[in-house]
Amino acid sequence: MGQQHRAWLILAHAYVRAAELDALIVRFGDMDSIVSAPQHDLKDAGLTAEKCAAIASPDDTKLGKALAWLEQESHHLVVYGQDNYPELLTQVPGQPLLLYVNGNVDSLFLPALAIVGSRNPTRGGLRNSVEFAKYLARQGFAIVSGLAEGIDTAAHRGALDVAGKTIAVLGHGIDRVYPAANRSLAHAIAQSGALVSEYPLGARPERWHFPERNRLISGLSLGTLVIEAARRSGSLITARLAAEQGREVFALPGSIHNPLARGCHALIRQGAKLVEAAGDITNELAPLTGHMVQNTTSSKRPDSLVADADHDYDELRTILSHDPVTIDELESQSGLTIDQLSSMLLILELHGEVESLSGGRYALSG
Amino acid sequence: MGQQHRAWLILAHAYVRAAELDALIVRFGDMDSIVSAPQHDLKDAGLTAEKCAAIASPDDTKLGKALAWLEQESHHLVVYGQDNYPELLTQVPGQPLLLYVNGNVDSLFLPALAIVGSRNPTRGGLRNSVEFAKYLARQGFAIVSGLAEGIDTAAHRGALDVAGKTIAVLGHGIDRVYPAANRSLAHAIAQSGALVSEYPLGARPERWHFPERNRLISGLSLGTLVIEAARRSGSLITARLAAEQGREVFALPGSIHNPLARGCHALIRQGAKLVEAAGDITNELAPLTGHMVQNTTSSKRPDSLVADADHDYDELRTILSHDPVTIDELESQSGLTIDQLSSMLLILELHGEVESLSGGRYALSG
Repeated sequence: MGQQHRAWLILAHAYVRAAELDALIVRFGDMDSIVSAPQHDLKDAGLTAEKCAAIASPDDTKLGKALAWLEQESHHLVVYGQDNYPELLTQVPGQPLLLYVNGNVDSLFLPALAIVGSRNPTRGGLRNSVEFAKYLARQGFAIVSGLAEGIDTAAHRGALDVAGKTIAVLGHGIDRVYPAANRSLAHAIAQSGALVSEYPLGARPERWHFPERNRLISGLSLGTLVIEAARRSGSLITARLAAEQGREVFALPGSIHNPLARGCHALIRQGAKLVEAAGDITNELAPLTGHMVQNTTSSKRPDSLVADADHDYDELRTILSHDPVTIDELESQSGLTIDQLSSMLLILELHGEVESLSGGRYALSG
Repeated sequence: MGQQHRAWLILAHAYVRAAELDALIVRFGDMDSIVSAPQHDLKDAGLTAEKCAAIASPDDTKLGKALAWLEQESHHLVVYGQDNYPELLTQVPGQPLLLYVNGNVDSLFLPALAIVGSRNPTRGGLRNSVEFAKYLARQGFAIVSGLAEGIDTAAHRGALDVAGKTIAVLGHGIDRVYPAANRSLAHAIAQSGALVSEYPLGARPERWHFPERNRLISGLSLGTLVIEAARRSGSLITARLAAEQGREVFALPGSIHNPLARGCHALIRQGAKLVEAAGDITNELAPLTGHMVQNTTSSKRPDSLVADADHDYDELRTILSHDPVTIDELESQSGLTIDQLSSMLLILELHGEVESLSGGRYALSG
C-alpha cells in the first residue's frame, strides 16, 4: 500500500489532474509504470514539461512526510478511479486526483447536503444553520461545509450536536487547521465524520484555494443550502458550482432589509429552490436518496422549534449564571427539553455568551 | 346625462353584465332602447327572466338615490365601452358594467400598481407597505388597494403622504365606509385619487364581495405587489387573479420564521417576481409604462451587478494569454480583487477557457 500511495502522491505533487490520469493509465498500464516512465514518454502522453520533471524527480522530503502522515490512524488517501472515491465526485468536472481524508472514509458515501453561508452571519442565520443541520443530520444526511467561521461552523456543530455525520472540506493541507479557533471542532469532525482536502500536506490556505475547494463542497453533496450570503460571496460560488454540477441549490429567503439575504434572493431569482423548512429539502431530495421523510417531520420542523425561541432565550439567560450548571439542572429549571436546551446553548456559545465546560456543564462567559 | 345614467343604473341594478351588453346594443341600438324594450324581446336577447323583470320594473327609489348621489361634486359613473372606462379593465374577463367613482376619474388612467397584504401585518410589513407606496407614487404610479386595515391602509397612506395618487376599490356600496376607522382616510383618497365600487349604493360589505372586488384591484393595475400574507388569504386571491389577467405579480420575501412571509414565498415559488426594492418593480414595468426609471435606482439594480460581472469577465479574458501569470499579476493588471479573480478564474476553468497551473498561475487553454 505504501508503494501504491507513493505513486499517487508523486502524481498529485506534480499537479497531474484526474482528467489526465485516464490517458496515462491507457498508455502505461499502472501507477508504478507511470511514475517510473522516462520523461520523454510522459511528455508524449501530453503532460507539460514541468509535470514530467516533477514526476521524474519527486520531492522525497515531501513524499516522506505524506507517507508518514498516512501511517497514522484515521488518515486515508482516497484516489480517483478506485472504490473508495466518492461516486458523486466522479461526476464532477475537474474532480481531484486524490483526497487526503482524516476520519471516517465511509462518511463520504452517505447522502450529503452542503450547508454554506456568510462568515459574519446574523444571529438568526446562525440559528437557522444549526437547526437545519441538526434536522438533516438526524434524517441521515451528512452535512458538508467548509469549516469557516459563521454559518459553516454552526452547520458542523449542529450535526455533531445530534451525533450526526459532518464533513469539512478544507482549502489547505489537511495537517493544518484554519481558522485556528476551530481546532477542537476539527478534531470532533474527524472523530465522527471526516476532514477532507485535495491540497498537499503543508499547503497554506491561499485565497484562490477557496473557490476551488467549493467545487468539492458542492460536488460531494446532492444539494447545497445557502443560509445567508452577501451578493458577492464564496457561498454564491458554491451554489453556482452546485448548479453547474447538476445538483440542487436551496436558499433561505430573508428580510429585504437584511443584506445577507441578498445573495439568497439572487439565487432564488436564478432558480434556486426557496426553502422555509428542512422538510422542503428532504422532500426535494427524497427521489435521489430513497430517503424516507419521517412522519414526525412536521412536528420537528425547524421553524416550529424556533417560533417561540426569542422568549425562550431570554428565559434561559436569566437561569444561567457564572456558576456552571449541568444541562439536566437547566432542564428542570427551565421547562425546556434537553433537545431545545442543547441547541440554544450551542447558539449562545457561538455568540460567545455561554461557555461549555467539562462534564456537560454550562456557564455564562466572561 | 341624467337620462343616460338612468338607463345604465337600471341595467346595473338588474345585474346585467358587461359581457351581455354588447349583444343587447347590437340588437336594440342604444341604452334607451334596451331599457324600454318589451320583456320578451329582452328574453330573446338572452337575458334571464329575473333580469328582464328587473329592467321592465326598475326600483325607482333606488334609482332616485343613485341619481341624487351622482349629482354631488366628484361623484361619477364610469360605464363599460365608453371613453372614461379604464383601458386595463376592458381586458379583464368579467369586467364590471359600471363603476361608481368618488374622486378624480382621471386617476384611473394612470399607470397603477396594486399593493395588498394582511390585515394584521408585522410592524416591518407595515413599514414596507408605506415605503414602497411612497416610492412608487413618487414615480408616478397610482397605488391601488382595498382600504382594509393593515397593509392596504399603509399603502394608501404612503401614497397620500407624498401627495401621490391612490385608488381604493371597495367591496360594498360607495356611500358606505368600511372599516369605519378609515372614514378620514377614505375622504383623503377621494380628494386626491378615487374611491371605486361596482356595487349599488347601500350594498353591504358581504363576504363574497371581497374576492370579486379583488379582481378589480388587480385588473386596474399593471402589477400586484404582495407585502405580507398568510398562506390562505385574500391577498393571494388578488395575486392569482393578477396572474390570470396576465399582469405582473410581485412579492416581498421575509424571514422563514414570519408566518406572514409564507404567502409571499408560496407566490415566489409559483413564479411571482421576488422584490427587494421598489426599483425592481419599476424596472419590470418600465416597458409597459414607458416610465423612465430614475438614475438613482440603477445603482441599486440587482441585474446591473450581473452586467458588471460580464464586463469583468471580458476584461479578464483580454488580460489572460497563453503565458502563465500569477493571480497577483492579474490583480495589479485588472483592478479586480484576489477574491473576485479567484472565483472568476475557477468559473473560466470549469468552462475550459482557462488552465490553472502550479504555483497559482493561470493561462488561456488550448
